[in-house]
This record gives sequence, structure tokens and C-alpha cells, in this order.
Amino acid sequence: MDKRAIGVFDSGVGGLTVLREIIEQMPFEDIIYFGDTARIPYGTKSSQTVIKYSQQNVRFLSQYDIKTIVVACNTASSIALKNLQESFDIPIIGVIDPGAKGAVQKTENNKIGVIGTTATVRSSAYQDRIREINPEISVIGTPCPLFVQIVEEGWEDSDVAELAAKKYLIELMDHEVDTLVLGCTHYPLLRYTLNKVLGNKVTLINPAYETAKALKEILTEKKMLRKSGETPVRRFFVSDAPEKFRRIGGNILNMEINNVDEVEIEKY
Amino acid sequence: MDKRAIGVFDSGVGGLTVLREIIEQMPFEDIIYFGDTARIPYGTKSSQTVIKYSQQNVRFLSQYDIKTIVVACNTASSIALKNLQESFDIPIIGVIDPGAKGAVQKTENNKIGVIGTTATVRSSAYQDRIREINPEISVIGTPCPLFVQIVEEGWEDSDVAELAAKKYLIELMDHEVDTLVLGCTHYPLLRYTLNKVLGNKVTLINPAYETAKALKEILTEKKMLRKSGETPVRRFFVSDAPEKFRRIGGNILNMEINNVDEVEIEKY
Repeated sequence: MDKRAIGVFDSGVGGLTVLREIIEQMPFEDIIYFGDTARIPYGTKSSQTVIKYSQQNVRFLSQYDIKTIVVACNTASSIALKNLQESFDIPIIGVIDPGAKGAVQKTENNKIGVIGTTATVRSSAYQDRIREINPEISVIGTPCPLFVQIVEEGWEDSDVAELAAKKYLIELMDHEVDTLVLGCTHYPLLRYTLNKVLGNKVTLINPAYETAKALKEILTEKKMLRKSGETPVRRFFVSDAPEKFRRIGGNILNMEINNVDEVEIEKY
Repeated sequence: MDKRAIGVFDSGVGGLTVLREIIEQMPFEDIIYFGDTARIPYGTKSSQTVIKYSQQNVRFLSQYDIKTIVVACNTASSIALKNLQESFDIPIIGVIDPGAKGAVQKTENNKIGVIGTTATVRSSAYQDRIREINPEISVIGTPCPLFVQIVEEGWEDSDVAELAAKKYLIELMDHEVDTLVLGCTHYPLLRYTLNKVLGNKVTLINPAYETAKALKEILTEKKMLRKSGETPVRRFFVSDAPEKFRRIGGNILNMEINNVDEVEIEKY
């Protein structure tokens, strides 16, 4: 058993959907979470900048006594993961590989859709990984940049969300995908609207869930999982607006967030 | 006549709508423009962070031989202008005061609406300034955070834009405002949709136009205006993705942008 904490970072609150799955599947682990709320969103930025920011985030988390780092942001996972794994000694996992595997297992007609930020879809990380696992699968990616704002506005079940989803997903529907990867941490909150637009025949894949599952398997295999213990310590850091993080993040995690501190992330 | 350049900054490309008006009204001025594309958007960030970023932007521009700085960003003008004016010797003007004056001149029923980012509307900068000029005017502010993304998606004339506008503006319409301040640099591009939703009785105020007009008056009065001269030099700097800025910015300015350099703004 390895008592050290799990480090998690994201561009903001979105990664808490990944953390929620981690807590649900591994309730005894200590957690250090960093949300880069000052520099959100990553999805519209250049690769070079996403890599620079991700490195700073890992350097910040590495100060603490951690056993592994989860890149809970789809954009950072798509663009920076390889660079991070080469630059740091600590094991680092992202959401792409688990999400891709989950989709490949589910598809029956070998047609998978991927939605995410512009940067995630353009990076082709999900598409490449899926084709690597099974070259016979055809994958179509569509960026849906408005979805994050729609969720942050609390409009996920509104007619605006439905109209935007219809505009974004028409091409995927024409291609008759039977499986859709929700390649952005905010998108699982649009599940109801997506089901309404796509119908029940399309299976939605939530990489947050798949990532927590993969992490648990790795920690179990390496005998690093905490199976019981004292009340776990969960600490949160943000680069801006801790009060807002406490409020919105508490809703996503469905538990009170008490320990939020502000960090000058540019210094790392 | 003062041959020094005019410095302009914004959180990204949006401020180019202000620059466009400056160029149209003062075609002989040299320009140094900084777009903080790495840290966009400002509208969701804390006041403390918006002030810190704005100070760095002014320090960057101050390296050049400039006679004045225009804060072309509504959020930075709302939150940081006073602080900037107190911290730096160079004359700095924002978009709020000209926008507020323009609205007060136009209203006939003394009911004005203000739309903008969450930070701009919450700061109450437009509302306070309008009431300061005429305490009998009632002002209602409504944040419309989705509008920026809608414009950046190129959906400004779509049914999504119309539905979002109806949701956002219903309260303003109930209050029968006859004048609406477009308190975010992206919003003038939604003019067609806003007219469709609000009807022709509501006058839309574009602070970009009002700001350029005010600046021209100040420079004329102080005998600092360039009324003729050689081809003006216009230089552009961004903190991320210069290629994207060249492309999107060129469309907004309606002229080719050749001189774009990338800056590490965190160092200022």
C-alpha cells in the first residue's frame, strides 16, 4: 500500500467530474487537486502554451508527496501528456487512452464520434488512439466549443443547448455513429440533451469514469491502492477566484470543499 | 502635433473593433496593439487578476514611444481603469465613460440597458457612470456570457444566437429600455440578431465608436492629433497564437495584419 496522495490537475472546475469518479471508486485516497482557473480555457490556446501551462501545473503538484498525477483535462491530455511523461519521473496518466478504450469496447458498428474543444479534436488524440487499437473503426471528430459556456451558464437542459447540439452533431448523425466520446469534462452534464438529440441508440462514453477505472486497476496491480484508512485528506488549489471554485466545485463534487488556496502558478 | 503612437490593449481580438473605429476616425496615427490571447477571457476572472493582467499590459505598451493608452476591453475598463490611471503617468482612457455618455445622450424615456460579460455587469461601472451623469435614469444590467462564444463560432446570425438573445434580454424588454449599451467588444457583431429580438425602437450604443470619438476630441483639444503624414505604422503583439490573430483579426479590421509578434506577457 502506498499512502502518498494522488495529484490531479485541470484547467478549472471541469476536472472535478474526473475527481468525483476517482473518489467514488477509490474513497480512501488522499488528493491534491489544482484547477488553473486564471488561465482557463485551454481548449482555444496553442499547443505550445498548453504544454507550458501543463508543465507548470505538474511542477506545482510535484512539490507534494504524491504517487501519481492524473491530467483531468481533455485538452492537456491530448496535447501535453507525452511531453509531461517524458519530462517528469512521476507516473502521469491522462483521460484519452481510457476514454478511447471504453469507446472501442462499446461500439458494435465500428463507427465512433468524438466531441470536445477545438484543440482536443484538432489534436486528433482520441481519433488516433482509437484507430491504433482497431484500425477498422472509422472515427469522426467535431469540436463543440459552445458546450462549455452552455454548461457554465446552467443551460444544459435548455432549448439553446438542444439547438446547438443539433447544429454540432448533424454530421456525426449522418455518419450513423453508435458510440460518442464526451471528450471534454463539462460534457457529461449535457447527457440528457445529447440523448434527446441523438436518440437512445448512441452510447455516450464518459472518459472521467473510464480514467478512474483505469487508475484503480493500475494502483491495484502495483499494490499502491489504499483500501482503507483514516479520513482521506483532500486539498484544493486554484490560480484564481477560490470562492467561486468552492461554490461551483462543491456542486460538481456534491460535497463541501473547504481547503481551497490560491496559487501564483506563473512562478512554477 | 504629437507623432508618438497610440497604445491599445484588449484581452484578445475583440479590441480590434475599437481599433477599427480609431483608424477610421484618426487614420494617420501610429498604433501599438496588444491582445492578451493567452489569458483571454477576462470576463470570468476575479478583479484582482484582471487588475494584475491590465498592469502587465500597460507596462508592456509603455516600453514604446506612445502618447496615450486605450483600454479597449470592457472588463478591464470596468475593473482596472482607475487603478491604472493612478499607477501610471501616461494618459489612459477606457470605453466605459464614452459608452455611458453616448447612451445618456440617446435615451428618451430614461431607461437604459447594459449588456456585457459577468465581470463587467457585476462591476456596475456602466450603471454607476450613467446614474452619475443623470440620476433620473434607471439602468438595468444583464450579463450575456454566451454571446462571445457565439460570435467566435461565427453563429451571430443563427437561431442559437436568437434564442440566447431572447433568454438574456427578456428582463430588459420587460423594463422597456429604449437604449442598450453593447458593453463587450464582440457584441456589435450581434447587431442584426439584437435588432431582430428587440425591435427597431431600441437604439444600440457601440462604445467602440464613442471611445474613438472621445479620443479624437481629446487629442484635437490638446493639439496632439496627427492630421496628415506618412503611411502610419501599426504594430501588433499577442501573448499566444499570432497566426490565429492574423487570420481572425484581419477579418475584424478588414485589412491585412502583417506585423504580429508573440510576447511573454507574464514577464512584465
